[in-house]
Amino acid sequence: MRRFTSFVVMLLLLCIGASPSLGQSVMKSAEAVRSADQEWMKVFAAKNLDKSVAALDESGAVLASNAPIANGREAVAKLFTGFFALPDLKISWHVDRAEVAKSGELGYTSGAYEMTFSDPSGKTIPDKGKYVTIWKKQKDGSWKVLLDIFNSDLPPAGAS
Amino acid sequence: MRRFTSFVVMLLLLCIGASPSLGQSVMKSAEAVRSADQEWMKVFAAKNLDKSVAALDESGAVLASNAPIANGREAVAKLFTGFFALPDLKISWHVDRAEVAKSGELGYTSGAYEMTFSDPSGKTIPDKGKYVTIWKKQKDGSWKVLLDIFNSDLPPAGAS
Repeated sequence: MRRFTSFVVMLLLLCIGASPSLGQSVMKSAEAVRSADQEWMKVFAAKNLDKSVAALDESGAVLASNAPIANGREAVAKLFTGFFALPDLKISWHVDRAEVAKSGELGYTSGAYEMTFSDPSGKTIPDKGKYVTIWKKQKDGSWKVLLDIFNSDLPPAGAS
Repeated sequence: MRRFTSFVVMLLLLCIGASPSLGQSVMKSAEAVRSADQEWMKVFAAKNLDKSVAALDESGAVLASNAPIANGREAVAKLFTGFFALPDLKISWHVDRAEVAKSGELGYTSGAYEMTFSDPSGKTIPDKGKYVTIWKKQKDGSWKVLLDIFNSDLPPAGAS
């Protein structure tokens, strides 16, 4: 009987190991990507290039408006450098939707951004829009950006 | 002994049921969202409004450039109606990345689009860009669009 019991316990432990729904809370994971999203926003708003780029997965990409895809950290660093050079740049965003797959390794956040910067004449240019970020859980348990894409709510420049 | 065996078999079946990695192939799922993406492209390119909107999840949203979020099928139908009204609209896109979470209910596709339409003077306006689509598996096994967002690679209209 003791053998039977330990065999059953072993099987149950295997079950728990194989079943992510038993191993972790999906709600907790949605909060984790929401939190990773807002941590990224803070270092980005502070124009911290290293930390902003470090938020990306090894194969991460940023799909910015009016530019080709920036694939990988090197291309993203170049893109962000240009972005941070915008005079008087102020940016923030908030999360409206966040979800993580039941298996706990893939998730997304989506929400709205607001930003302003100055054009060459010193005039303040406002922009607001929306974004989707896909997050991948790393081996160390942290979440990194696999894909980030955004666009403006405003009519194109020059449109009446 | 027979009791013991059937108990073990039951536990093993429970394990298989609880473990998505044993229940389905992740590669197969990535192909499934890739295929759903291209099916959507076909009905969209054919300007089939009903089928284009039916591809959306009940809580699906389309995040188009230069417009507020279209949340839900009614708002998306309105957005697509305007889009399909563009004179001589031709559009296609292809998938560059596709992935489904191990649990098999959440995935994404990302790729590049090309389109042309005619402006009021009859001049052909070309555009090309990129997109990210998040897919949610439905109870019937089909995949529907949870979030779709895209933007142009080209400089903004009026930019030098």
